[in-house]
Amino acid sequence: MLNIEQMKWWGWGGENIEFDMDSKPELWPYIKNVVGIEDEVKLTPSFKYEDIDLPLQNLNEKFINQIKSFIDPERLRVDKKERLIHSYGKSFRDLWRIRNGIVHASPDCVIYPLSENEIASIIKAALDFDIVIIPFGAGSNIAGCLEADNGSGRMIVSVDMKLMDKVISVDKYSGTARIQAGALGPLMEKQLNTFGVTLGHFPDSFEYSTIGGWIATRSAGMQSDKYGKIEDMVLSLRMVTPTGTIITRTVPKSSNGIDINHICLGSEGTLGIVTEAVVQVHKLPEYRVPYGYLFPDFESGVNAVYECVEKYCPPVVTRLNDPGKTALSLAYRSRSSSFKSLLGKAVKSYLKNVKKFDLDKACLMLNVFEGDKENFTEIRKKVNRIYKKHGAFNLGTEPGKAFEKGKYDFPYLRDYVMDRNIMADVSETSTVWQNLLPLYYAVMDSIDKAMKQTVNKGFLGCHISHTYHTGASLYFTFGCQQAPGYELEQYLYIKKAAEDAFIKGGATLSHHHAVGFEHMPWIKDDISETGIKAVRGLKKSLDPNNIMNPDKIIPPLEKPLNWGLQKSDLEKLSNGLLKKPDIHSPESEAGEPDVFK
Amino acid sequence: MLNIEQMKWWGWGGENIEFDMDSKPELWPYIKNVVGIEDEVKLTPSFKYEDIDLPLQNLNEKFINQIKSFIDPERLRVDKKERLIHSYGKSFRDLWRIRNGIVHASPDCVIYPLSENEIASIIKAALDFDIVIIPFGAGSNIAGCLEADNGSGRMIVSVDMKLMDKVISVDKYSGTARIQAGALGPLMEKQLNTFGVTLGHFPDSFEYSTIGGWIATRSAGMQSDKYGKIEDMVLSLRMVTPTGTIITRTVPKSSNGIDINHICLGSEGTLGIVTEAVVQVHKLPEYRVPYGYLFPDFESGVNAVYECVEKYCPPVVTRLNDPGKTALSLAYRSRSSSFKSLLGKAVKSYLKNVKKFDLDKACLMLNVFEGDKENFTEIRKKVNRIYKKHGAFNLGTEPGKAFEKGKYDFPYLRDYVMDRNIMADVSETSTVWQNLLPLYYAVMDSIDKAMKQTVNKGFLGCHISHTYHTGASLYFTFGCQQAPGYELEQYLYIKKAAEDAFIKGGATLSHHHAVGFEHMPWIKDDISETGIKAVRGLKKSLDPNNIMNPDKIIPPLEKPLNWGLQKSDLEKLSNGLLKKPDIHSPESEAGEPDVFK
Repeated sequence: MLNIEQMKWWGWGGENIEFDMDSKPELWPYIKNVVGIEDEVKLTPSFKYEDIDLPLQNLNEKFINQIKSFIDPERLRVDKKERLIHSYGKSFRDLWRIRNGIVHASPDCVIYPLSENEIASIIKAALDFDIVIIPFGAGSNIAGCLEADNGSGRMIVSVDMKLMDKVISVDKYSGTARIQAGALGPLMEKQLNTFGVTLGHFPDSFEYSTIGGWIATRSAGMQSDKYGKIEDMVLSLRMVTPTGTIITRTVPKSSNGIDINHICLGSEGTLGIVTEAVVQVHKLPEYRVPYGYLFPDFESGVNAVYECVEKYCPPVVTRLNDPGKTALSLAYRSRSSSFKSLLGKAVKSYLKNVKKFDLDKACLMLNVFEGDKENFTEIRKKVNRIYKKHGAFNLGTEPGKAFEKGKYDFPYLRDYVMDRNIMADVSETSTVWQNLLPLYYAVMDSIDKAMKQTVNKGFLGCHISHTYHTGASLYFTFGCQQAPGYELEQYLYIKKAAEDAFIKGGATLSHHHAVGFEHMPWIKDDISETGIKAVRGLKKSLDPNNIMNPDKIIPPLEKPLNWGLQKSDLEKLSNGLLKKPDIHSPESEAGEPDVFK
Repeated sequence: MLNIEQMKWWGWGGENIEFDMDSKPELWPYIKNVVGIEDEVKLTPSFKYEDIDLPLQNLNEKFINQIKSFIDPERLRVDKKERLIHSYGKSFRDLWRIRNGIVHASPDCVIYPLSENEIASIIKAALDFDIVIIPFGAGSNIAGCLEADNGSGRMIVSVDMKLMDKVISVDKYSGTARIQAGALGPLMEKQLNTFGVTLGHFPDSFEYSTIGGWIATRSAGMQSDKYGKIEDMVLSLRMVTPTGTIITRTVPKSSNGIDINHICLGSEGTLGIVTEAVVQVHKLPEYRVPYGYLFPDFESGVNAVYECVEKYCPPVVTRLNDPGKTALSLAYRSRSSSFKSLLGKAVKSYLKNVKKFDLDKACLMLNVFEGDKENFTEIRKKVNRIYKKHGAFNLGTEPGKAFEKGKYDFPYLRDYVMDRNIMADVSETSTVWQNLLPLYYAVMDSIDKAMKQTVNKGFLGCHISHTYHTGASLYFTFGCQQAPGYELEQYLYIKKAAEDAFIKGGATLSHHHAVGFEHMPWIKDDISETGIKAVRGLKKSLDPNNIMNPDKIIPPLEKPLNWGLQKSDLEKLSNGLLKKPDIHSPESEAGEPDVFK
């Protein structure tokens, strides 16, 4: 039997991988303190898929027979576990529902194609029998992109791309590689590395996301300052739609009318399935060294990041934590790492007494420098000079090494805290430099206020991890004790506070997490009503029967959008009725999306 | 009366500006020799617009009255000269026809709006009365983007954007500027420069093109290696369509579904009128110095360019001429410039005898370096080292200065030679590094063969002016004596040879000149049939009545595309029947576009 590795359906990562809390003795006490847990919390029970009721399976016999004519049985799955795994992505909303057995819609079967021809045949069959198709990479999306349409009564098929995972060819001289869409990050990089090249795309989800997923969601990796976002990397692609296959040419740039690559990029499975792409790759750098710095406060860190961009010398990784994320990072330090000694007594004393740091405001910056010896040295020298000017304290290579080691760990930690009834998730955006700090303060305030309308205390932090000539991203992480009986509403309320603040503050609904379902209430403000018409025109033209991942990105025309938060919930939450003391007065929000009116 | 400067309708530039041939004593003799003109050719007579018959003017009275209700009379023009000026762009095909009084279709009136509101009202009125709108910037397009639809019988209106020419605001800290779409290059840069910033976008057409036109055609400027193509510069824009106004948010990057900016970029006026955009700008560089080099041959020049890209140290301008373009550039040297001494006897002797250059193969490279002192010095040092390794001879700053001085002259020269019955135009493309030289040879061969099927000798050259991590552009210039009685067919035949070779060779139909009408036969091969469906879907959704610049980018659905070259012409031309000796045998072309079958 073909064994295809999937993430655990109730959390992040493979079934046997768990977050290693034991090696981080300061982390759980820190979290308990910051979210206000006094005693140890009982673990939620282990998860059995047998206990979960999925919606009645809707198998269209004619469709299944047609599929069986070209797909061998082990690549056509109808069993409960496969259905469950493909029901959701990995947002808090997804995980909380699945852990609590709430699955309103689920794929009726899962197909693992091996080729573009098979995909074309699957889509053709789906068209013939009016069946919904949801493309699936590794299932790590946190915007609700993978959630099945639940109203049409049509059979739902998840097309899992994981078997199409080859680097087809590498043109090292041109710096390009043709890669199948289902290649997971690590396997793809491994194949590329044998040619001495890298894509340079390392999103936090790297271990459990595919290049097809990155393209479909306009993903960004932590080295984007050098290598760009995925949309900057694609030279050409192939996408099978219900009306034919889009094929673009492998050229660096063109003026061939509207850029067809950009119609596929960010289409989130609503127009078709990306089967392969030619992307730019770079020779593996000779030198690569991570460094850590401590800035006296977030503002000075931001100013330093800005100056590096302005002076054309950004490191390959820039990750500036605000005080909240800095505290979390310091609590994270592993016993086995000498990072532990990072802020030992002597250093603390030096920082406080000599450098006059207020350690509650200090911000940890993590960088990676790379290049040939000359480039590496030049940029590091310039960055050091700029950082010093802005009051940074050089922490050496240990914090960077610790970061490199743990950089994909965060989603595992989320599972650990969810096991202990903590809600935790993220929201991220981008804006121009002038607006970066005002937006930061406004969003922090908005999330903090919303969170504290539901609980007495919580964790809130932010980091900057993608910089551009004109601005940067802001990535907010929040967590607090779940509000019993209102877990989902509480999450959505806080999520809404973040998104409202993004849009009100002139920023975008997401810098690299997609629209999916969770960000849909804000899309009209982001791209305008006429922008929505444009997307609708593409949809109608390429997928006239609306079989491809329906009701994503843009709100459905024929029914109201039910985001999951009712007016009555909003009132209850904003009045602080879920918690006992400290009732905050509600405040009117300018620009409330229609769906909440 | 409002005086709006326009280019001369029969050629490039203002009516009183002519190419200064007198100061370039070697140029005309060189051209005469290379195209085989033995005696001086008589000038074609001066051009009088009174002599030209325009199509019968079709003025919809109700529309005109509606427009007059909000546009003052001097901004609503119905006179012949205005109609003529707005009939065509500036390709050889355009200029030859207009000079010969061939105008099958022409705008019936020209409107100069002052605001987005006026544009919305114009489009609304056009919708009400079924009137065609053709957005017009400065009229420099050479792909047939501005040519009026000539079949529908509808009134045609040219909306000239030139009065919307303001830099609305500059955010120097963020490196952004909000600019109205009708701003011509020089006026825009002048306004930006007062803030100490530059857009860094200098296409060859800079003096007579607008930012709206750049956006609509995905333009590239000669500093794109540092500043990017226009599509890399746009953060947000506003575009009025017949179904509403697209408004995007000013953020550096987003993951908000399909990128709506990219639906407007390259839309060539077929979906709406771009009214303004926020683009990234850069602080004016402290240092800026042009340099020239001579490479032993094109291949070594290409290798040097490649190595600079690979080592992350491209100059801000890289312009590598092949031997043909090098000869033209050397003939171009002005009497007043010490560039004249560039290849004086001593230098020539040194190059031949010491450096062992074959001067017939030598290639002129022009560069500009800029930055603060540190960046400037670093890059120049690195580039010098790389160029030296590839056998380059450093010519100092004079050739670069001469290039900077004459960089916008070429289109004027084209008028000069057209006055003397020479056909001259350009075709350009891009491809990946691995394919660059093979494509170069194939296209040179294809154009050369086609040209020599019509005349005995001609000029053919190529330069590289835009480089990327994965490849570069190739820009071909060709010219020869016109074939009497078949001037247009001859031009189209040679154009076709270039485009056929691009597409056959895996390249794109244009790197930065747009599709318009002239490149339309190749669009299906470039973006695929399904890609065309996508564009058609956008068109149907945003411009359901097809009033915006109809029949551009994608072939019309309801009628066959008449490109202007019939099968009988093709046969005649490929059999060399237009010239007397040296009949070449015809050869079948793989991938002949439908329109020629």
